[in-house]
Amino acid sequence: MSSTINPKCIIAVDAMGGDYAPRNAVLGAIDAFKSSPDFELLLVGKKDSIQEILSENNLEFDSDKIIHAEQIIEMHDSPTTSLKLKSDSSIVVGSKLVKDKKAHAFVSAGNTGAMMAASTLITGRIKGVSRPTMGAALPTAKGGVCYVYDVGASVDSKPDHLFEYAVMASIFVSEIEGVKNPTIGLLSVGEESEKGNEATKAAHKLIKNSNLNFIGNVEGRDVLKGDINIVICDGFVGNILLKFAESVIGLLKGKMRIYADKSITNKLRALLAKGTLKGALTGMDYQEYGGVPLLGINGISIIGHGSSSPLAIKNMILKAKEMYDKNLIQKIEESLKFYTEKNND
Amino acid sequence: MSSTINPKCIIAVDAMGGDYAPRNAVLGAIDAFKSSPDFELLLVGKKDSIQEILSENNLEFDSDKIIHAEQIIEMHDSPTTSLKLKSDSSIVVGSKLVKDKKAHAFVSAGNTGAMMAASTLITGRIKGVSRPTMGAALPTAKGGVCYVYDVGASVDSKPDHLFEYAVMASIFVSEIEGVKNPTIGLLSVGEESEKGNEATKAAHKLIKNSNLNFIGNVEGRDVLKGDINIVICDGFVGNILLKFAESVIGLLKGKMRIYADKSITNKLRALLAKGTLKGALTGMDYQEYGGVPLLGINGISIIGHGSSSPLAIKNMILKAKEMYDKNLIQKIEESLKFYTEKNND
Repeated sequence: MSSTINPKCIIAVDAMGGDYAPRNAVLGAIDAFKSSPDFELLLVGKKDSIQEILSENNLEFDSDKIIHAEQIIEMHDSPTTSLKLKSDSSIVVGSKLVKDKKAHAFVSAGNTGAMMAASTLITGRIKGVSRPTMGAALPTAKGGVCYVYDVGASVDSKPDHLFEYAVMASIFVSEIEGVKNPTIGLLSVGEESEKGNEATKAAHKLIKNSNLNFIGNVEGRDVLKGDINIVICDGFVGNILLKFAESVIGLLKGKMRIYADKSITNKLRALLAKGTLKGALTGMDYQEYGGVPLLGINGISIIGHGSSSPLAIKNMILKAKEMYDKNLIQKIEESLKFYTEKNND
Repeated sequence: MSSTINPKCIIAVDAMGGDYAPRNAVLGAIDAFKSSPDFELLLVGKKDSIQEILSENNLEFDSDKIIHAEQIIEMHDSPTTSLKLKSDSSIVVGSKLVKDKKAHAFVSAGNTGAMMAASTLITGRIKGVSRPTMGAALPTAKGGVCYVYDVGASVDSKPDHLFEYAVMASIFVSEIEGVKNPTIGLLSVGEESEKGNEATKAAHKLIKNSNLNFIGNVEGRDVLKGDINIVICDGFVGNILLKFAESVIGLLKGKMRIYADKSITNKLRALLAKGTLKGALTGMDYQEYGGVPLLGINGISIIGHGSSSPLAIKNMILKAKEMYDKNLIQKIEESLKFYTEKNND
C-alpha cells in the first residue's frame, strides 16, 4: 500500500448490498466496529437510508464516515453494463475508494458479478495476476473443509491462470484459514499426470515445478473425502461443482419425502431421522457462511451472499481486517513475482 | 447394418471383463440368453476358462459360439497401449467382431478406457459422429433420474461435439429409456444464453437452432432437482460431476460417524436413522446399475462397471438387444445426417 493512506486499516462496507440492505449491512458493520475498534469504518451508500437504520437502532456513527452513493446496483442488474450506467452506485464508489487508496478493503453482499467486475476493472489486479479467483469451502467426510478455487471468477482458464489460483489459494488458506503448508490437488479426470484436458495437463507441470505442496491430480470423488486442503480447477467446473454440492441437501430432502410418503411407518421413521440428519449435517448449509475474498485484486475485496445476516457481514469485515493485518496482498504479489523471476531465469 | 450378417441379433460378450470374470460375465450372459433366446450369443475370451465356469454350473453352451481370445486387458492396463500390445485380447477380438459385422453388439465390464478406445478405434464411429459419448443417470429429488452426457468419453469438447452429444442422448433417452421428447439443458454457469465458456456459448446456438427439446442453459444446482431429462456437458466436467455425485454417500456416512461419536445419545439416534436413510437413498448407489452404451459407435458397444454382478451383465445384454431391435445406430446416423444437410442448405 502506498504511504498516502493511514497505516490504520480502513474498511469500506457496501451499505446497499444484499437482500436485506441497508439493514443487515449497517448493523453488521457497526457490530464489527464495536467488537474490534482497531480499524476505520466507512459506510458506502445512500446517506439518508443509512442514517435511518442507525437512528432506528440507536446507533451513533460519525456522519463523515458515510460515503454517499446515489445509485444501487440491483441483484438482477447486468454486471458489466451496470458499472457504466450506475457510476454513482455503492459498488462503484466503494471500489474506487480502494483504487484511490482511501480504503484498504471493500466488503459487499451485493450483486456478485458486479462486485467481481468492479474489483477487477475499477480497483484493478495485483501486478503479476492474470485473473482474480474466488474460492469456496466444501465440508468433507472427515469434518474439515476442502477449499475449491476457482468457483466462478473466470472461465476458460489457461494453464498459467490455474497456476496463479494455486499460488493465491495456498497463501490465503495458510495465512487466513490457518492450514500450514496446505496440500493442493489439481481437479481432473484421472490421477495420472497425463490425464485431463489440455489446460490441466499443462497446469500440472507448472504447479509440479513450484514450491507448492502439490499432491498431483485429484478426481471428483476426492473433493469431499477430507484428505486434500485445496482443489484447483477452472471457474466453469468449480462453479458447476459448487452449485451441485449446494443442491445435495435438496436431493436428500426430496428422497426423504418420497420415502415418507410410502407408508405411515416410513413417515414416522423419516420424522425420527430428521433431527439426527439435521444434527449430523450442521455446516452443510453453505449459505450460513460469510463472504469470500476475490483474490488477486490490488486491495481487499470481499463478496458476500445476498442473504447475508448482520453476523455474516460482521465476519466478512473481520476477515478483511485479518487479511490487512497479515499483508495478504503484498504476500501474493511477492510470491507471484518470485515465480515470474524464477521462470525467467 | 450390411446384409453379410444374419438379421437375427448377435451379441458378443467379453467373458474376461470385470473384477469377477469370467464367472459373472459367463453366468450373466447365459442367464440373458435363457431369458430371451431371441438373439445369438457369442462368448469372447479364454475357451478353457469359459468352459470351466460353464461345467461348474452345469450349463450347456455351443462351443462354436465361444470365440477364443488368448489375452486379457487388465483393469490397470493403459487403454491405448494395451490395444496394440494385446491384439488377441477379448476386448480387441470382440470389437473386431462388430467391426467385421460378425456381431451387432459387444458388451464388456472390463477396462473402461480400453473399451472406449477399442470401440472408437477398432469398431469405428457412425458416419457424422465426431466423438462418441457416454452418459450416466443421476437420481433426482423427484424420484426420477437426470441423464448427463458426456461423463468422460471425451474432454475439450468443441461446440459441435456438444451438439452431437445432445442429438445422440436425445435419441437414446427417448427410444431406450422411454422418456418422450426429453428436455435438454446445457450445463453452464448461468441460465442466460450469454453465460458460459466459449464452447457452451457456441453450443447453445447450435442446440437452440435444432429440433431438440432444448430448455436452455442449466446450472449445477439443476441436475438433481428432477426437472430436466438430459444435461449436456463436456466429458471433463461430466466426469468430475459424476465422481463427485458418487462420493456424496461417503460424505453422509462420514458426517453421521462424526455425529455418532459425539455422545451415546447421538450414537443411538444415528443407529436408528441408518435404516431410514438406507431406505430413502435406495438407488443412489450408482454401482448397482448395469452398463451404459458408448453412443456414436457404428455398432452397439456397452460398457459395464468392473464390479458388475451377473444380473448387471444380463441387463447390459438385454439393453444391447433392445438397442438393436429399435435400430438405434441407424436412427443416430439419420438424425445427424438430417442436421448436416440442414446446415449445408
